[in-house]
Amino acid sequence: MSDGEFDLIKSLRESLSLRRLDAAQGLVKGVGDDAAVLRQSAELDTVITTDLLVEDIDFKLTGDEETDASLIGRRAVAVSLSDIAAMGARPRWLLLSVGIPRKLWECGFARTLLSSALSYAAGFGVALVGGDISRTPEHVVVDSIVLGEVERGRAVPRSGAKPGDQIYVTGFLGGAAYTLRDAERQSWHAADGPEGGLREPTPQPRVEFGSIIGSRRLATAMIDISDGLSSDLAHLCRESGVGARVEAASLPLDPVLNRAGLKKSDALSLALHGGEDFELLFTVRPRRANAVEKLRGQVNLTRIGEVTAERGKVRLVHNKRARLLRPGGFEHFGRDEK
Amino acid sequence: MSDGEFDLIKSLRESLSLRRLDAAQGLVKGVGDDAAVLRQSAELDTVITTDLLVEDIDFKLTGDEETDASLIGRRAVAVSLSDIAAMGARPRWLLLSVGIPRKLWECGFARTLLSSALSYAAGFGVALVGGDISRTPEHVVVDSIVLGEVERGRAVPRSGAKPGDQIYVTGFLGGAAYTLRDAERQSWHAADGPEGGLREPTPQPRVEFGSIIGSRRLATAMIDISDGLSSDLAHLCRESGVGARVEAASLPLDPVLNRAGLKKSDALSLALHGGEDFELLFTVRPRRANAVEKLRGQVNLTRIGEVTAERGKVRLVHNKRARLLRPGGFEHFGRDEK
Repeated sequence: MSDGEFDLIKSLRESLSLRRLDAAQGLVKGVGDDAAVLRQSAELDTVITTDLLVEDIDFKLTGDEETDASLIGRRAVAVSLSDIAAMGARPRWLLLSVGIPRKLWECGFARTLLSSALSYAAGFGVALVGGDISRTPEHVVVDSIVLGEVERGRAVPRSGAKPGDQIYVTGFLGGAAYTLRDAERQSWHAADGPEGGLREPTPQPRVEFGSIIGSRRLATAMIDISDGLSSDLAHLCRESGVGARVEAASLPLDPVLNRAGLKKSDALSLALHGGEDFELLFTVRPRRANAVEKLRGQVNLTRIGEVTAERGKVRLVHNKRARLLRPGGFEHFGRDEK
Repeated sequence: MSDGEFDLIKSLRESLSLRRLDAAQGLVKGVGDDAAVLRQSAELDTVITTDLLVEDIDFKLTGDEETDASLIGRRAVAVSLSDIAAMGARPRWLLLSVGIPRKLWECGFARTLLSSALSYAAGFGVALVGGDISRTPEHVVVDSIVLGEVERGRAVPRSGAKPGDQIYVTGFLGGAAYTLRDAERQSWHAADGPEGGLREPTPQPRVEFGSIIGSRRLATAMIDISDGLSSDLAHLCRESGVGARVEAASLPLDPVLNRAGLKKSDALSLALHGGEDFELLFTVRPRRANAVEKLRGQVNLTRIGEVTAERGKVRLVHNKRARLLRPGGFEHFGRDEK
């Protein structure tokens, strides 16, 4: 969801004065985070997210129906799993709404898509429990809904960062965007790696790591950076009412960018704005940084900067100069659309 | 979801042997009912449903953006509320995934759609807690996800009907289908009533009544008949492994059909196959029929027949002859598609 979309739904909710209803219904955190948090029992909160993927907007079909269906199925699930991980929760259940044109229904596209989504989800211990299938006039659409759980009160919002908190990111950045968009492949999902091997383009959401961060209360705020580091860090700052300072030199550039011979500035740009990485970005109180550092064995973990009091401003320190970093990631609508 | 879609997902789940995963994740009832039932606490089960509405399949746009957006918003929510009611549960939370083409985004279509969905849901005490908004190349799509709750173990499945159970239906039948499809209007949503007044085409889901049926354990099986009585009764029989015998003379035909001067056979056909009614059909043990009859004050309630042991066969008794009633309701794919 882009800033414009956030604003729209927030303003609608405010204009309709729904706060009393939210409170009555046990809504802990609603629109404006990776997922909604619902209070349902004394021990656990439920976390739920929905992600709509649309043909020719979020993916293209290459004509290889088997590959297309299978990758779309996995990708749809991965996007939602990543949202649940970004709340510090454990995913448990999946629902899929799938719209497909008649000609693809007839060739078994839906069966392949659902079966790949189902197996992929099962690999994370997540059960497909429902969904809907509809015909569409033309394009494929997939809405992926994942429910998760987290110990009561431990969901990690985007809004808890405080000045002085350390900013961490998992994994490596820019590789997915390079593979998907900049390697001059025809489409994101048939991409060969730069060394000729087939590179698996399904993002690996940080399901296990996210739930550890949540259950151990290690982070003050967390977000997944599927839209790109610059966009998603801006979201986190906005929701937390803070700013941030990021060290360009500390960004964990994907080794693939170097191997492909990219200029440093292009690599940096992909890492900052490319998106598609499905890594987690989170903020940590200085006194909790030690506990976070101990998780390095589980995942590549990099401290990339610090939260500042400069509300809404993200600064990138590069070659000893600090410049304002504008969101350059993917947005469906709005000025920065690609 | 049509029979073909059920079969697809069921066979996929079986081929992947996911039963152990389902059990581990507390899945009480999954694909193949109006909604999935999830065990989350000692007191309550969570019920969740998702419904995908697609432009030119489930609705058409007339060009009056304000009316279109507002009716689609309400209708999407109503469809899902009806599914939750059909499980005997109380709806609590709503998520909406909306895909719209750029030109409609620019004219505020999304704002109107979301705001009408939000107010409509709030009227049932349901809070919008999240969603996703995406661009589409051409058509509007809306996926409506509603979560509800029911006392543990009291969700009413489609699968509990036994021979000898009495079959009841709420409200009146055939009126919605007449208004939407057969009144030779250009589209379902700008339909004037036969007496010239504007007829509200948003179905009124039986939210309150459904939750009473669930919490008082009055029904052995329940389904909403949005696809049409003949189709949905067939679904219920199939899931329960039973048959049914329906008295044509006892069907509660919508008075609008008579006022419009329809032939008796056409009116009957609309009531049986028309769909769009969003009423509830449920089965009751003979010894519980008295308790159900006491609810007549709340809603028009009609006993239309009886469950039989004739597995998978629905018979319609009309002019003293019993004939086989084939499903004629709306299905997205398959033989009976309209």
